[in-house]
This record gives sequence, structure tokens and C-alpha cells, in this order.
Amino acid sequence: MKPAHTLGLDYGTNSVRAVVVSCADGGTVGTHVFDYPSGERGVIVDAADPHLARQNPADYVQGLRVATLGALADADETGGFSRDRVTGIGVDTTGSTPIPVDAACRPLALDPKWRANPAAHAWLWKDHTAAEEAAAITAVAREHAPEYLAPIGGTYSSEWFWSKVWRCLNVAPDVFAEANSWVELADFVPAVLSGVSDPRNVLRCVCAAGHKAMYSRAWGGLPSTGFLARLDPRLAELRGHLYEEAHPPHLPAGRLSSRWAEELGLPAGIPIAMGGFDAHYGAVGAGVAPGTLVKIIGTSTCDITVAPATEALADVPGICGIVDGSVMTGYYGIEAGQSAVGDLLHWWIDSVCDGDDALHGTLSDEAARLHPGESGLLALDWNNGNRTVLVDPRLTGLILGQTLGTTRAEVYRALIESTAFGARVIVERLVDCGIPIHRIVCCGGIAAKNDLFMQIYADVLGRPMLLAGSRQTPALGAAISAAVAAGPDNGGYANFENAQARMTSVRDERFDPEPRARAIYDGLYSMYRELHDSFGGVRGAQADFPSLMKRLMALRERVAATGTGAGAGAGAA
Amino acid sequence: MKPAHTLGLDYGTNSVRAVVVSCADGGTVGTHVFDYPSGERGVIVDAADPHLARQNPADYVQGLRVATLGALADADETGGFSRDRVTGIGVDTTGSTPIPVDAACRPLALDPKWRANPAAHAWLWKDHTAAEEAAAITAVAREHAPEYLAPIGGTYSSEWFWSKVWRCLNVAPDVFAEANSWVELADFVPAVLSGVSDPRNVLRCVCAAGHKAMYSRAWGGLPSTGFLARLDPRLAELRGHLYEEAHPPHLPAGRLSSRWAEELGLPAGIPIAMGGFDAHYGAVGAGVAPGTLVKIIGTSTCDITVAPATEALADVPGICGIVDGSVMTGYYGIEAGQSAVGDLLHWWIDSVCDGDDALHGTLSDEAARLHPGESGLLALDWNNGNRTVLVDPRLTGLILGQTLGTTRAEVYRALIESTAFGARVIVERLVDCGIPIHRIVCCGGIAAKNDLFMQIYADVLGRPMLLAGSRQTPALGAAISAAVAAGPDNGGYANFENAQARMTSVRDERFDPEPRARAIYDGLYSMYRELHDSFGGVRGAQADFPSLMKRLMALRERVAATGTGAGAGAGAA
Repeated sequence: MKPAHTLGLDYGTNSVRAVVVSCADGGTVGTHVFDYPSGERGVIVDAADPHLARQNPADYVQGLRVATLGALADADETGGFSRDRVTGIGVDTTGSTPIPVDAACRPLALDPKWRANPAAHAWLWKDHTAAEEAAAITAVAREHAPEYLAPIGGTYSSEWFWSKVWRCLNVAPDVFAEANSWVELADFVPAVLSGVSDPRNVLRCVCAAGHKAMYSRAWGGLPSTGFLARLDPRLAELRGHLYEEAHPPHLPAGRLSSRWAEELGLPAGIPIAMGGFDAHYGAVGAGVAPGTLVKIIGTSTCDITVAPATEALADVPGICGIVDGSVMTGYYGIEAGQSAVGDLLHWWIDSVCDGDDALHGTLSDEAARLHPGESGLLALDWNNGNRTVLVDPRLTGLILGQTLGTTRAEVYRALIESTAFGARVIVERLVDCGIPIHRIVCCGGIAAKNDLFMQIYADVLGRPMLLAGSRQTPALGAAISAAVAAGPDNGGYANFENAQARMTSVRDERFDPEPRARAIYDGLYSMYRELHDSFGGVRGAQADFPSLMKRLMALRERVAATGTGAGAGAGAA
Repeated sequence: MKPAHTLGLDYGTNSVRAVVVSCADGGTVGTHVFDYPSGERGVIVDAADPHLARQNPADYVQGLRVATLGALADADETGGFSRDRVTGIGVDTTGSTPIPVDAACRPLALDPKWRANPAAHAWLWKDHTAAEEAAAITAVAREHAPEYLAPIGGTYSSEWFWSKVWRCLNVAPDVFAEANSWVELADFVPAVLSGVSDPRNVLRCVCAAGHKAMYSRAWGGLPSTGFLARLDPRLAELRGHLYEEAHPPHLPAGRLSSRWAEELGLPAGIPIAMGGFDAHYGAVGAGVAPGTLVKIIGTSTCDITVAPATEALADVPGICGIVDGSVMTGYYGIEAGQSAVGDLLHWWIDSVCDGDDALHGTLSDEAARLHPGESGLLALDWNNGNRTVLVDPRLTGLILGQTLGTTRAEVYRALIESTAFGARVIVERLVDCGIPIHRIVCCGGIAAKNDLFMQIYADVLGRPMLLAGSRQTPALGAAISAAVAAGPDNGGYANFENAQARMTSVRDERFDPEPRARAIYDGLYSMYRELHDSFGGVRGAQADFPSLMKRLMALRERVAATGTGAGAGAGAA
């Protein structure tokens, strides 16, 4: 019998990627990417409202077919692969990306009547039209149901399920009224593959429900009808059309329907794994485990770790999501993040310096020749607000220490450093709250291609930065979920831990902290904390601003004098 | 008899300019510029030491001849002008620019023996090699003679006379030993024209002595020998070769020698006015008077006003120079300044944005289309430290409020605004200390050509910005000093006030504050003060940093919503 393979489908912002993965070692034998044809690179936008971002559900279905067939055709050329031995399908998607559907679980946007109405399409994760609704939900929860806010860090986001659904009710009541239910993209794709034709039969994943829809078993599932009625009675009514229970990722969401089996040339009835968010399955594909933090570093950063659900876990202030079973069954999924990382560097190079890819390279080279502390600069990485640990989208960037000789490369390096300091705040918060971090594995675009960035992170965090073995960790994680759904009798595994042990890896290449750089960064980090805590409104913030610029200048002079910063110690004046 | 004219000589950093001016109305009838041939654009530099900046005294003498003859030849073509009716010569120069001279008052650098030694040349105002000496002078004065520091704002500068002379002693003791005396460039040029051949006979101006050499009648002239001996006994010894008294600007420094009269084709014996610094005579040429502040706006800014010397004047904390008779006889000259203004904009455009003159224009146009408060940015203008009122060269720049959408034009405007806020701090300090400011007259390169800049200043300061009628106010001021030295019997005037009444003017073009912009800037200024006072170490500084970014964002949103910022009020959240 040929070896077992599973299929991972990764629904991103601009495209969907399908990979065919060997269950034996996680190796990829086939891959195909389908770019969404609608809107601007797959995103329906509105020139009059920069906050609007929607997607055409037709793209999801077309992409499901094209990407899967492409990846399978690719795999067909590999010896040892057989479509008969594809034993499961896993799906990861962006989120929260809710879709209004009719009573047959068909997206309203597929109906010609609604096709031209953006509110009837999928509300993409980065749609920010629902800021008012989010603020109102937070306010009502603070007064009437503070327990809903504790696991999400105290603030409900405009990017999340209830904000978006309520926004639709407020601005497109006809769409809201027409919708029988709303389904997250992460649940929609498995339901399509399984042939589910009634929204009540869509199995919902804990991942989306818990992180974005305030679902918890602790209060009986979704927010109470009483709470929702305070927002709008029609939301309370909708609750009955949603779900009572959400499911952990080891359970199948369904079985491949005969229609899709025929269309894809795969065995009917193979398990479709529970869907999940890209970051979560990306963490699985990168080897997340208790004590292991996975950093998915791209335009923004998502930090994920897990803790055994057998132990009681205290709330971690400022951590946006702690949900039982959201990443792997039997563990609390713990999610943090930084709102702008790659985006911050792109802003500087593309927008301020009016540069291109070549300038990225030039500034990286110049910045790499600088010693820590040599620029005299210090920045806050808040150009897109601060997600963790301050949970405040209304914070902004700050750079200080400029002289008339300050260069664009120095600012570029200072911005990288600022994101590393922000990353350190998150790790320290986790550790302080009893969540150990012994190992950091990085994945995502920046981790793969920016060595300077990774070395600065190692030096600032004082820990080795490991790199995930796969370049497509979300798709790999989805394929792993399929291997778990398939189970050991079908070439898969009994649980996520066993699957990860065989199917994930880290690269030999790694970044280790350099002791002298680390000492200087310890000093700079404490200055960063002075700014962070003061401007971020942390209670009891301590700062000595009259001396701050002078301490930076003294450090700069010491580094210049020693050439390497040797002896610069803790960086204090 | 033909109408009287005077000659003004303006010794700048890169060139000397001569102008021939009508005493009747201040109109220019002849002008010529001579670029110094030595060094880089007239400045002797040292690749190994960026702080070193010297000038070749031979350039001064050659420029005296060439520029004057050129301006006279230019004037000869004007009807009504006659060299016989040139009734006086005035001189303004950079400073403090001390020159070591021999017993014949000849600069050491003119001697072939010393020509290759930079220490034997003129120590240009912007030479910063004497930072250690300046710090030591400040420390000794703080302990033993705090009265010396009160009129200079509490800190002695590396740019000033004693720092430089002491530096020469420390690094080039042979030059120091060879020098019979040291003469400021502002005193040297009049001495040359007068044929003075002994340093003891050089009349020294209060302007240079008082602002840069800690001269005051209050303590018997220059610093005491006891004080100087604490620095170095050889400095105490030098004191005997300098001067006991310095002189106000209405007195002649000498009379045109027959040799120079012949060389220039001018009447021998006409008065040579007391020399002065370019900023001071520039203020005279712009119409400085009690209640009138003159702002000379260029790479940096110099602010000058005067107060009647008949009234007792309290120390003004943070104002670097208050000297009786330094600008006009009978008045305290009051001097403040900002360390980087044009330089700050050049840094952003040339260095960070890698742009050129065209980009200056583009960004100015874009920035002019922004409303006050629209960028959400706030900056501190300290990239080159803060001269007034904090007197702290070890402060650095700061920008906050950046988002991922922040543009280079927004930062450009925020930097202009930051210098305007810095200018407002100075005006408020003067007014708070009993020095009234009823009128602001601007001159210098930026005032002449950057309308956006001037409008922002009017809006931030809440006062009309007037423009000096002359584009060459220092040379005009020097020519006015010559008209005063000539006196009313020789076509001149009895005093500076009378001369200014006829010879200076303001342009019709002016910039008036726009009420709505002013209201928004009042709010932004109070936020600037929070940063300024906190990072500047002002005792009792009050700031609410946790709300600062949010207040800026709220202002930005209000401005965006109203289109014009109308109703934005004081800019507070």
C-alpha cells in the first residue's frame, strides 16, 4: 500500500494555497496557489471608506477546486503518491471572516440579488468598519459581563465576529434580515467539502468561536441572549441560528461529500478536519508545544503558545486570547501579537523613503554595520497601535534621539529594534504570568529572509531564535490536523503531539544572542519600557525623561569610542 | 554736494559682502561678494576631526579689498554717487571668531612659519573642538563665579572666546606662546582699515566681548585673573594683553588709514564704525527696537531684541546673552536662538528623504495643503540640541504620532511646526520676564522664500510676521553703524534710532495669524510644552503622557471630519 498523504488548504488574504503532505515526515509532494480574482488582489474595497475590506465567497469555492486539483496534479508526478491514499483534508483561513448565509448554507453573495452589495459578501479579517460597534460591545461587557472580556485582554475588536455582524445590521439591515445565519470562513470551507446544506449542521471550531465570538463553556457558549439584547434584540434573535457548542481541532468537521470527491478525484468519506485560523494551524505546523512560543512574523506578528488545559491558568493581562482547545485539543491556546512589524519597515522604506526592494537591501546592509546603541535612537513600534500587552489601537509611533546626522538606515534599525522590544514585553508578560517559554520558533516571511532582523531579536530577547522547517507552516498545520482526523488506522496519528513529532522540524540555521549586544540591548530595553509604560498608560510607570536623551547620547558615545560597545554594560548613563 | 553714502562689510562663513548704501533712505547702490578662496568654501577643515573649523585671515584681507572695490565700482555707475561722499565704513562678522596675532597685530597665520598650522588661523564661530574646555569653564564658574554665567544663560559654549583660546593653549601651546594677543574678527577688520599696528590699540566692541568673552563692567571687564588662573595661569597672563574696556557701537573704532584710503579710492580719515556680530547688526538693519523682536531665520535662528539700559533688567533664565550696548548704544542687547531650523528641514529632506531642491518644493506644496492638526504628529526641534531656553546641547529630536499612513510631507510640516513652537517658547519667556514683544520682524534665507514656514509661525505665535525690507540686513546694519559714526554733520545720524527711522523698512507683504489655525496650534503648543518640559528637564514639568497620543489622534479626527479643523477648539481631547 502506498504511504498516506493529507491535503492542507490555506486561505490567505490574497490567495488560497493547497499542499499535499506526506504523513510520514511532513514533506510536501504537491502545491498550488490560486489568486482570488475579485476586487484588488482578492479584496473588495471602497474608495470612500478605507476601513472596508470584503471578499467574494465565490472566490473561496473556485479556489478550493483550482488549488486542490493543481496540488494533486503536482503530487501525481511524485513516486509513492496516490490519490487513493489521501486520507484527510485540513483547512486554515484568515479570521474573523464571517459570511452571511441563507437557509441552505449558501453565501448570500452568490445570489445575483445581493452580488453587488458588499455587506452580503465575506467580512474579511481586516475590515475595520465596525469600530463603533466594537467600542459599544466593550462598554456593555465592562458593565454587564466583564467575564467575557477577561480572556480577550479587556477589549473587543472591530475585527471580530459580533462587531461585524452588528455593523451589518446597522448599515445593511436588509442583508442582515435576509441572512439565515453567519458562518466563519474557517467553518465554511469544511462545511462545503462535507456537503452541509443547513447552517445548523455546520460544526464550528473553538478557534474562531472562542477567540472572536466570545464563546466559552464557562458561560454556556456564546454570549447570553440578555447580553446580546442589550446591543440589539435582533442579535439576540440571531443567537438561536448560530450554535450551542464549538469543537476542538482533533474532531472531524465532516466527511468528504461524494460530489466533491468526484470533482477532486479523492476518496469519498475521508475526514475533513475542523477548520482553524491560519496563525493557529501555522503554530501547529511550526511545532508549538508547552514551553515553545511560535512567532509568525510578517506584516504583523502573531505569537502563539499552549499550556496544558489540565492546570488552572490565571488570566494574563493584555493577552488577547486564551481559549481551551483553540490550537490543539487538551491545551489552552494562548495568542498574542504585534500590530505592525513588517508593515512598520515597509512604511519607513516604501512610504517615507520612497524606496523599493533594492532600498530594503541597501538599508539592511547599512543597518547591519551599525552596533547596538550606535545610532542613539529609540522608537516605539506603535504606528498601528499596540495589540499586546496594552491592547490599545489608539496608540501611535514615536522616535527619539535624532540628530542632524541621523540616517535613514539608523532609523530603519531602530524600528526593527522597537519591534524586538515589543516582542520582549510579550515574552516577559507570559513568563511573569506562569507560562514558561523555553524555546522560540519563528516562521513567516520576515523570519525566512531578514537575517539582521532575526539577530536583533535574538540579542534583544536574549534567546536563540529558531526557524520552522517548513516555509508553509499554516498549510502544513492544516495537513497535520487532517492526519489527526484520519487517525493512526489510516496512516495518521492519534493526537497532535504525535503528528508534530514526525511532521514538523526546525532548520539547522539559527540565531544565537551575542553577549555584548545583549548587554547593550538590556539597557536600551529598560529605556524602551520607560517610554512604553508612560505613553502606554501602565499604572505605576516609572521614567526619568529629563535624562533619557542624555543616556542615549552617552551610550552612543561609549559605543563609538569602543567600536563594539564593549564595556557599555547595561547602557545606563 | 552729492548725497552721503556709507559702506557696509558683512563677513559671513563662506564669503564677504560689501554694500554701498544711501544714508538718506538705506537704498543699496553698489554690492559685491567675494568668496573666500581657502579650504572648503572658505572653511579650513580636518577630515580626522569634524569639530574643527578655521579660516585663513589672508582671505579676510583679500576680501576686504576685492569686495569693497567691486561694490564701489558698482556704485560708480549710479547717478548721485561719489566716492568722495562715502562718509564711513561699518563691519559685521561671524563670531566668536578669535584670531591669534603678533605684537604688530598681524595674524600669526600670515607668517609662513605658521601657515600650515590650523591653530594659528582664525577659529571660526562654528569650531567645536573646545567642548571639554567649555565644560570646564562652566564648572569653574559655577563654583567660583556664578555671576559670570547669569547673563549667558548658565552655560559657557565651546563656540566662544575663552574656550577656543584655552583649547589652543592645550593642543597647540607653541601657537599660544607665539601669540601676543587674540583679536575677534569683528575687531580685527576695523583695526586693519584703521591701520592699527599694536594689539593694545585695537578697540574692542562690547558685542563680542560681552556675549562671548564674559566681559562686563559689573565685574570690572574680563574675568578676573584669579578666575582665569584656575583654568590655566597662562590664560591669566594673557588677560594683560587683551583689553580693560570694550566699547559700544556708536563710537568709531578708528579712522580710515591713508594706505587703505589710497587702495580703495576713499577719503582718508572717514570713521570706521565699531565692529559687531552679523546677527546684531542684522537686527539693526531689520529695525530692532524696544518691543520689536528680530528673527534671523536660516540654518539656525537668532532672535534679538533690545531693552532700554536705563531700566534695571532681571536675568532672563535660559536667555544666552544680555549685554549692555551690544546691539545699540543705550540698550541691553538681548539674544536668544534655536540651534537647528533650516538645518532641521534640510536634514529631513536631503538626508532622510535623499531629496534635492525639487523635493523641498514638492513637500512644501504637499505640506501646505495639510490643515493644522491633520497629521496627528508632534515633534521636538532638538536635533542639534536646544539653545534657548533650555541651554542644553545634549538634547535630541523626537517625533511622535506616526501611523502607517504618515507621509514625508506630514513629517516635514511637523518639523516646521516644532521650530515654531520652539520660537514661541522663546517669545513667551521674554514676555514673562518683562521684555515686551509687540512686533516681530523676520529676515534671513527662510523668511525670504518659504511662505508656508512664515504662515505657520504667524499661526503658532499668534502674531503677524513682518519681513525686513532689506535682503541684506547685516550689511545694511553695518552701513547704519557707519552713518551713526559719521554723525549728522557728515550726512549721517546722531544715533541708531534716527538712522533706523530713515534707513530701514518692512515689506508690504506680511503673514497674519489665521484664527482657526491659531486655536488648533494653541492646543498643539500645550502638548509640545508637555514634551518640552518633561524631556528638557524643566522643574515642575506637567505632562499627561498616557493621553497624549490619543489627544493628537482625536484632534486629527476632528480636523478630518470638519475639513478645516473648525470647532476643534483648543485641541484637547
